[in-house]
Amino acid sequence: MTQQETYAEKLTRLAKERKSIICVGLDPEIDKIPLHGEIEDVVFTFYRNILQAMIDENVKPAIVKPNYAFYFQHGFEGLKALQRIVGFCHENDIPIILDAKVGDINKTAQAYAKGIFDWLKVDAVTVNAYMGRDVLEPFFPYCREGKGVYGLLKTSNESSGELQDLELKDGKKVYLAAADILAGIYSKKEVTSGSLGGVVGATYPIQLQELNDYFVSRNVVVPLLIPGVGKQGGSAADVVQALGGKKNENIWMHRINVSSGFSEAYIAQKTTDYAGAAVKELKRLNKEVGP
Amino acid sequence: MTQQETYAEKLTRLAKERKSIICVGLDPEIDKIPLHGEIEDVVFTFYRNILQAMIDENVKPAIVKPNYAFYFQHGFEGLKALQRIVGFCHENDIPIILDAKVGDINKTAQAYAKGIFDWLKVDAVTVNAYMGRDVLEPFFPYCREGKGVYGLLKTSNESSGELQDLELKDGKKVYLAAADILAGIYSKKEVTSGSLGGVVGATYPIQLQELNDYFVSRNVVVPLLIPGVGKQGGSAADVVQALGGKKNENIWMHRINVSSGFSEAYIAQKTTDYAGAAVKELKRLNKEVGP
Repeated sequence: MTQQETYAEKLTRLAKERKSIICVGLDPEIDKIPLHGEIEDVVFTFYRNILQAMIDENVKPAIVKPNYAFYFQHGFEGLKALQRIVGFCHENDIPIILDAKVGDINKTAQAYAKGIFDWLKVDAVTVNAYMGRDVLEPFFPYCREGKGVYGLLKTSNESSGELQDLELKDGKKVYLAAADILAGIYSKKEVTSGSLGGVVGATYPIQLQELNDYFVSRNVVVPLLIPGVGKQGGSAADVVQALGGKKNENIWMHRINVSSGFSEAYIAQKTTDYAGAAVKELKRLNKEVGP
Repeated sequence: MTQQETYAEKLTRLAKERKSIICVGLDPEIDKIPLHGEIEDVVFTFYRNILQAMIDENVKPAIVKPNYAFYFQHGFEGLKALQRIVGFCHENDIPIILDAKVGDINKTAQAYAKGIFDWLKVDAVTVNAYMGRDVLEPFFPYCREGKGVYGLLKTSNESSGELQDLELKDGKKVYLAAADILAGIYSKKEVTSGSLGGVVGATYPIQLQELNDYFVSRNVVVPLLIPGVGKQGGSAADVVQALGGKKNENIWMHRINVSSGFSEAYIAQKTTDYAGAAVKELKRLNKEVGP
């Protein structure tokens, strides 16, 4: 029997094959999509055309990340568009992280896992473990099948420090205590190595470095998902620096997410060719962060 | 122009009218529902019959709480059942809290708010503010229209202490810092009084009392949603005690949630009349906690 490829191994393999650690965020804002028609078709066509152009231009994304909220807001139409995008990605061997930040416990978390992996059929999901390890545990059986689960650690937004940066009695910050939960699960070998990742904002490069160094020092494999580059103010080059530089072998399992940087590339580049503009932006980013 | 009734005022009015502070949790587990057929119909029929029996027996719930995960796991069929249950509740003047524990920021949180209030048309939602006030802000316009938003504070599950109970440098626990975010928003009068609530588990009556006392001392109106009674081990009578007892006027805006206590009442009571069993359980609980 061949060993199942772990989630982190898959991330590493695809990044090397595609020479990219960029995650293409797929967060549709209808009023920024230059297409008309039914919402389901507009959303699907927009992203299908962008992804197809990337494939055609030999910059197939090493992963994509739709945020559930952007589809959910349009009800069944939005969710059908999400399903079609997921289907297109599978046909083209592009893994999908569903950014849903789910956080519930026991049977409820099991129900989320079922919906996420069995119904929507994505490859990874983001979760919020404010409720502790009870949120994560029901996902472990899926991790054994190669799925990935990213826990929020230090998020990219302005108010993330209100809870996450609070200093504990022992001098640690709350975000490090959140990282501790992940490392603790790994240490007890409760879950497949490389299947539990962390979300850390590009807008906080010092904390990003601190968290990455912490996982390295604990000798655990924690792929990071790093949003916040672009509009939110983070820089992809700073992220790579914080992760130990381009030459660091570990860099391949991490992903830097960019969303509106792609969907609004055509606006920034003053063109109507939205797919071509997104391709250009991905090539630029791959060059900026790649080896 | 008449003043819009605030969310907390609505909770208080309905609890007094219906002599109940019990929230009827609607978390369908297919293998525990004694009906056969399509999932959408099975789920809708089961809860419609339970709620109709409660209405007929003069114990109309003062609120219900479907957990999104239990519907989402069944895909479109599950979500259609949720829509039909919400519709039935509206027709019968029963408000709905969607337990979705959403937690995202800015435009993404706006998208969640749109899906929750404009598409699913519920009256309140649970949110996870590990990411800080950025999670809550996009909900404020809905709060002005009488909607409610409950932030997770100290949750009912076993591992809730892993992050929530950590002691900060100033001696406070993390769950109190989460409560502080809500109180701070109220103090600055950024949101309608009584529209931001908190989730606190019945399994932690000491922390429940501490949090309720804290809000009272800060002079802010924070309706609490209290799950964890029944299987999880919390007692409804203890909850009432922690909230200052039956005679406390504030008690009416709070809600104690029971889910499987209703859906599995027919199993506990060894009967096939699942609706009648749920009615009996609601009457018992109302008597236990009511004035």
